[in-house]
Amino acid sequence: MRRLVNDPYEIVEEMLEGYVRAFPDKVKLLEHDGRVVVGTHAPKKDKVGVIVGGGSGHEPLFLGYVGEGFADAAVIGNINTSPSPEPCYNSVKAVDAGKGCIYLYGNYAGDVMNFDIGAEMAAEDGIRVETVLVTDDVISSENVEDRRGIAGDFFVFKTAAAAADDGLDLDGVVEIARKTNANCATMGVALGAADHPNTGKPMFEMDLGDMEVGMGIHGEPGVRRGKTEPADDVVQEILDVIIPELKLAEGDEVCVLVNSLGATPLMDLLVAYRKVAEVLDEKGVKVHKNFIGSYASTMNMPGMSVTLQKVDDELKRYIDWPTDAPYFVQK
Amino acid sequence: MRRLVNDPYEIVEEMLEGYVRAFPDKVKLLEHDGRVVVGTHAPKKDKVGVIVGGGSGHEPLFLGYVGEGFADAAVIGNINTSPSPEPCYNSVKAVDAGKGCIYLYGNYAGDVMNFDIGAEMAAEDGIRVETVLVTDDVISSENVEDRRGIAGDFFVFKTAAAAADDGLDLDGVVEIARKTNANCATMGVALGAADHPNTGKPMFEMDLGDMEVGMGIHGEPGVRRGKTEPADDVVQEILDVIIPELKLAEGDEVCVLVNSLGATPLMDLLVAYRKVAEVLDEKGVKVHKNFIGSYASTMNMPGMSVTLQKVDDELKRYIDWPTDAPYFVQK
Repeated sequence: MRRLVNDPYEIVEEMLEGYVRAFPDKVKLLEHDGRVVVGTHAPKKDKVGVIVGGGSGHEPLFLGYVGEGFADAAVIGNINTSPSPEPCYNSVKAVDAGKGCIYLYGNYAGDVMNFDIGAEMAAEDGIRVETVLVTDDVISSENVEDRRGIAGDFFVFKTAAAAADDGLDLDGVVEIARKTNANCATMGVALGAADHPNTGKPMFEMDLGDMEVGMGIHGEPGVRRGKTEPADDVVQEILDVIIPELKLAEGDEVCVLVNSLGATPLMDLLVAYRKVAEVLDEKGVKVHKNFIGSYASTMNMPGMSVTLQKVDDELKRYIDWPTDAPYFVQK
Repeated sequence: MRRLVNDPYEIVEEMLEGYVRAFPDKVKLLEHDGRVVVGTHAPKKDKVGVIVGGGSGHEPLFLGYVGEGFADAAVIGNINTSPSPEPCYNSVKAVDAGKGCIYLYGNYAGDVMNFDIGAEMAAEDGIRVETVLVTDDVISSENVEDRRGIAGDFFVFKTAAAAADDGLDLDGVVEIARKTNANCATMGVALGAADHPNTGKPMFEMDLGDMEVGMGIHGEPGVRRGKTEPADDVVQEILDVIIPELKLAEGDEVCVLVNSLGATPLMDLLVAYRKVAEVLDEKGVKVHKNFIGSYASTMNMPGMSVTLQKVDDELKRYIDWPTDAPYFVQK
């Protein structure tokens, strides 16, 4: 593999140590649970606790989005592995301010199982925890509830966290998260695999020069594999799925996320964004704000995803809500 | 190659088109010269014009650092190729506000030649243009003046631009740029090559599992090639060069930039930062601020660099100076 690591079985701990050393005024690890990144601002008085999380290997997701105005805590699993129930529970105890908490994460079976146990443990302490699963990966299932969550996590986390910071109660925060998720659609394309530090090898095989449209962020199968095509054609293929999914029409407004899965350079993201902007322009769809960079990675996987987030005044206000989370960038 | 492109000979134009479409309130291309990215704020009254630039393929360097409080313009060359003299000159005409301009770029022969011609053309119009070359790549030459500029560009651009925004005259801005450069040291490590879109192939050969310590951002030879070693050992080897270079002693203060060359994930940068922080702690060197991400890339090259920028109150103030440049992130 082409990565610089130490003991691969310590990589998550070392990453977390580096992270809290880098931003000591913003985040810390729980003293009794090194897999919970907590904002130094949390618990915030009279605010619903917002907890995100999942397996490692998607940085800056999830740890980078903990901060005032964004998530209160992130629960961190091993690479491509759900966190265990204990840190899910501990995160609630750390950030609950008496208003209950919300768990927000991508829809994967392991995460659902363990976060649900965490919520049950919290319920025994009398703390209400609600869950909203992100399901933006449109081609992962015909059935919306069965879809996986990928880069759209970013928008769902952002708006729900802002709503909590705005003083909404738990039901209100849940409603914002569901509304955001229902108006969010993503599709990706992979051009190769990430290197897994534990094996020292690519997570799967893909011939040089091939691409797989629709692949998930853990290498889940997409809709088709074939020779790499021109960027504009691939972007058009993605938009031909996600624009109808959101039933976008003239006059609608969206936020755009062109996300690098890791090894796709900003140069190529900007080329792709150019095509996205052109197509949206032609349709009379307005771009409220765009995010072009690596927001939800698969370590060093070559590839990208395009997310469209349909927005109204309420969602725009929450996407624009200020935050000091270290890896939230908004210009 | 594992990249999504259209016509590779149009990639720079398409990237620039995507960029100005993405941030139309902040940047534009000159109408008569599509290789000059100008901030919509420029020219700013009574301010020295700050112009950065160089070859493409290092994004977000240079275009991402144009914005109010940062550079007024970026001059954009083809991939790994200096911009030609014409856009260097046109950038001056676009941003000069009667106080003269400064060119800031990494020390490469082609850039020096073409920017110098641009400055001569401007001089014929009675506009004074000064140049400060960035020379932070410490192992590229024994002789400081012969060293190349790499990720340290970021700090030199940032402080000089802030000094201009603070109202300093051209001599004052030059002095800040020189002072920053004199207190900046970088060393990188590559684990493979970027894919060049024009050839569709890696820019050079490197066996899987090898690394080259000290390699430059265009693949210039480093100090040694060998099997990839543990991250901590490589970081220590880098620090053993750049800490003595800056003569850092207990009580000194630095900014740290742990920079991905493209295909090195944030996970690995955070592991590396952990080691940097540990070593600086042991030496009693304080970290004022850190930057961990991809600030000066080589497209999709696997590898990273570590930059230490020694700072005093003046440089800290300029590094902290606010800016709305799209790819400047500071938390």
